[in-house]
Amino acid sequence: MATEIDRLIQYLAKLPGLGPRSARRAALHLIQRRESLMAPLARAMADAAQHIRACSVCGNLDSTDPCGVCTDPRRDPAVICVVEEVADLWALDRTGSFRGRYHVLGGTLSALDGVGPEDLGIPRLVTRAREPQVTEVILATNATVDGQTTAHYIADLLADAGVAVTGLAHGVPVGGELDYLDDGTLNAALRARRGIGSA
Amino acid sequence: MATEIDRLIQYLAKLPGLGPRSARRAALHLIQRRESLMAPLARAMADAAQHIRACSVCGNLDSTDPCGVCTDPRRDPAVICVVEEVADLWALDRTGSFRGRYHVLGGTLSALDGVGPEDLGIPRLVTRAREPQVTEVILATNATVDGQTTAHYIADLLADAGVAVTGLAHGVPVGGELDYLDDGTLNAALRARRGIGSA
Repeated sequence: MATEIDRLIQYLAKLPGLGPRSARRAALHLIQRRESLMAPLARAMADAAQHIRACSVCGNLDSTDPCGVCTDPRRDPAVICVVEEVADLWALDRTGSFRGRYHVLGGTLSALDGVGPEDLGIPRLVTRAREPQVTEVILATNATVDGQTTAHYIADLLADAGVAVTGLAHGVPVGGELDYLDDGTLNAALRARRGIGSA
Repeated sequence: MATEIDRLIQYLAKLPGLGPRSARRAALHLIQRRESLMAPLARAMADAAQHIRACSVCGNLDSTDPCGVCTDPRRDPAVICVVEEVADLWALDRTGSFRGRYHVLGGTLSALDGVGPEDLGIPRLVTRAREPQVTEVILATNATVDGQTTAHYIADLLADAGVAVTGLAHGVPVGGELDYLDDGTLNAALRARRGIGSA
């Protein structure tokens, strides 16, 4: 096999979701669509590499700094939603039901991997939370041990910041089947049960 | 979301094996690994776009024309293995058990999609098969209706070419469980059963 193809496959295989087999398929697909896909994708990557930066306020990725979310005057500056990764920010924003601002940690605290509060921009978050217009910080880290440990650490730091510190509700996913859910989720959903009324 | 990121996601989502969700993950992965992954991958794509061509003899993709397989003096020029796609050529060649040459059709005959013998380089294959050094043509198209129809069409054309025309054996895949195999495969495996001897 030509070294050019081999190298292309090797780099494609480093993308999440592509194994060696699908990387080979993707490489062939690209080579056979030189003009319609490979060239535009290469241009899109060059554009992104040149223009996309992390927002110095919230850590979001955008072509402006501060990012479009931080500078949007229609968004509520009173609420900051803390997430682990930019992908989480995108996921929450796609729902359209949160119109505040974000803080992207870029991971979770980990003594093992040497990830401390500084690495996650937590001091910066505390400063932001103390700004007078901020009234609530939503800790929307993942519902994993690492995510929850990080959330508790941040909640402790924010205890005297004069803001409400909240977390996402646990419960049955919409469309979820009880039989397939773990005990922890069912427990949480039971404990947080709500009245079903006509109102 | 920045248009640069959006465009990157859109093009990544056109790769086989990447849906919208994994395209988003891949885009983030790339942006966060600007130097270690995005730049080298863009270079690898530009290199491949510039140097990789289809071999005018066999249809393989390589940086030379004729390709490395066609010009390799250690390969047996007497046997031509006919495959549908370059990926099939790669798959067969990885086994290391075929050391002849190839002919890549680039698809299967399809009246519905207007794919005729010319589009698959079948006249070129017939010319190659009639060269004096060629003694065997292996029809290694997929074991699908389209693949087998194409194989039969080619076999008919080669009937008077003075070469042996063969096909891959059908049977139980190595490591396969009988219970999960279709009736057709089991039938073929039974009919082609072999003696198990000490020799």
